[in-house]
Amino acid sequence: MASMASELDNRSMVILTDGFSNPVTAKTACCVLRYCGDEVVAILDRSAAGKTAEEMLGVGGMIPVIDRLDTVPQAKSLLIGIAPPGGKIPQAWRPIVLDAISRGMTVYSGLHDFLVNDVEFVAAANASGAKLVDVRRNQERDVANRVGLRDECLRVHTVGQDCGVGKMLVAVELTRALSSRDVSAKFIATGQTGILVEGDGCPIDCVVADFLSGAVEKMILANQDHDILMIEGQGSLAHPRYSAVTLGLLHGCLPHGMILCYEAGREGVNGMDHVPLKSLPELRTVYETMAQLMGPSEVIGVAMNSRCLTDDQAERERQRVRSEMGLPVCDVIRHGPEELVKAVFDLRRRRAGAAV
Amino acid sequence: MASMASELDNRSMVILTDGFSNPVTAKTACCVLRYCGDEVVAILDRSAAGKTAEEMLGVGGMIPVIDRLDTVPQAKSLLIGIAPPGGKIPQAWRPIVLDAISRGMTVYSGLHDFLVNDVEFVAAANASGAKLVDVRRNQERDVANRVGLRDECLRVHTVGQDCGVGKMLVAVELTRALSSRDVSAKFIATGQTGILVEGDGCPIDCVVADFLSGAVEKMILANQDHDILMIEGQGSLAHPRYSAVTLGLLHGCLPHGMILCYEAGREGVNGMDHVPLKSLPELRTVYETMAQLMGPSEVIGVAMNSRCLTDDQAERERQRVRSEMGLPVCDVIRHGPEELVKAVFDLRRRRAGAAV
Repeated sequence: MASMASELDNRSMVILTDGFSNPVTAKTACCVLRYCGDEVVAILDRSAAGKTAEEMLGVGGMIPVIDRLDTVPQAKSLLIGIAPPGGKIPQAWRPIVLDAISRGMTVYSGLHDFLVNDVEFVAAANASGAKLVDVRRNQERDVANRVGLRDECLRVHTVGQDCGVGKMLVAVELTRALSSRDVSAKFIATGQTGILVEGDGCPIDCVVADFLSGAVEKMILANQDHDILMIEGQGSLAHPRYSAVTLGLLHGCLPHGMILCYEAGREGVNGMDHVPLKSLPELRTVYETMAQLMGPSEVIGVAMNSRCLTDDQAERERQRVRSEMGLPVCDVIRHGPEELVKAVFDLRRRRAGAAV
Repeated sequence: MASMASELDNRSMVILTDGFSNPVTAKTACCVLRYCGDEVVAILDRSAAGKTAEEMLGVGGMIPVIDRLDTVPQAKSLLIGIAPPGGKIPQAWRPIVLDAISRGMTVYSGLHDFLVNDVEFVAAANASGAKLVDVRRNQERDVANRVGLRDECLRVHTVGQDCGVGKMLVAVELTRALSSRDVSAKFIATGQTGILVEGDGCPIDCVVADFLSGAVEKMILANQDHDILMIEGQGSLAHPRYSAVTLGLLHGCLPHGMILCYEAGREGVNGMDHVPLKSLPELRTVYETMAQLMGPSEVIGVAMNSRCLTDDQAERERQRVRSEMGLPVCDVIRHGPEELVKAVFDLRRRRAGAAV
């Protein structure tokens, strides 16, 4: 597992979302604002300069939106704050990235197109001494072995109906809620945003396919001194593009329990409207079937992302899904994570009872 | 899709299996002997020099086993003929590979460790002018879109209980049998051995996970002018190491029909004896469940690899599986592929009827 802790110290970041400042595309920006807001100096978006992060993205409080790096000379780094399909850097951003590099700022990127493979960026960084950090870059080359897993370490995995429904956020919120109850819990980051937040992890969607489950297993083995691991999910088993990533992760982390995450109101696959989403009951069956190929596993609750609903709508939706699924349901931001924390403790109790 | 046709012309190959000359580890060697035997000059294995390929590997007829390249000055290329777990080149082979390079021979490798990243091999190749060809090397960077698939092109996919059960061989044999009946059929290679045999394809287990289904979809779109595509499977949906590859391939090629391949008598996962194999009925359900997430699909037959059985045992096993599964069953080598060819034609007829 790559540890970036030293590279992530004292970042004083400007987050670049220029022209893509909506909560879905700028998911990386929103999560970093939420969990590392005290390290963020400003957001750079030329179309919204003068606003606050909160006004523009619904998170980040009074952190200002700026239109050029000049205005924040104290900033030490620039973070690419979006996750476009295919992972390429927008052409219009190149002058901004080059400006940051010429100022000696570290540039963090989670894109599939690596900064260190860009001749122009590398030349500029060599000239200024700036550091280029590609969060997705990895050299994973180990297969999974399914040996040495500690069964007393409870593994809980957030799985999803789709991309961008909140699997990372739910895993972080539950880890924090468990830790606040003096449980030794650890968030296992599996994507670039989670890694930026947690300081370690593996960008599994950028691992060579043969070694995906092995890369995940390695993270589990390295952290199973904790009592509970909350493992960030990716994509969906029914996603036409990314189901390989989802299954390799599932079979690499071998969860005892899964939390099914979805966004209320979404009907088609994110970015592929011609493909309808599968229902939550159908996905529950699919996740349990595939997980149980490797060992006992069950969906223990549903995490609802209700950001587009009113309070009343959210309450009705919560009741509907509770009755449809017969499981605990909550929006960890709107309702707090308690109902799912209880589901995790219940699973631990059932497993302890079964082991006696 | 990478086309290697020009690189594969007139190969006059020596296949290197030195010390690993058994049909499972030397799977690449065996398949190339079977389908491209007229391009093979010799096998190099220092422990068996003087034997024939047939005596040593059960395939390849009178092709000699040699102990040094000196004895075959007419050879133009060296093929790494094994597929070790993790894909690293055995240390003891380095002098042989360097000898081939110094003779100006092209070296073909399907290992995960690329020849072109090996400083010593590259220096030697620069000195002699030899070519280094890494069959697994790729730059796939496109996601799947599920747009533009031609439904009249029948997609049949060989899926498996495990690795190394004959999924590639079954796909090639069925493609040949269909072609001999004047059907426009094409074998879609998805692994290094298949690519060496067919001259094109994509080494999907070495693609970055996010782009796996996209790489497969691209091959389908490029070849759907054929009436039938026989798509080579990889791994197994229940494989602890490689299930990601299997699902990304399944969801990239969206098969109308699947042929379930297994090896009679095998009980544990290849190379992971502590993990028991799932039963054929259970796997049939799992493959159909996962394929049907994307569209209608069904298992239409079973391909039995009975290489360790006597004729009597094979006949009993065939009857047992026929009655257990209610499906056509044959060993395409021992019995010929006719029963599965009929199953493919039956599927095509059913689909044509349903479309009327």
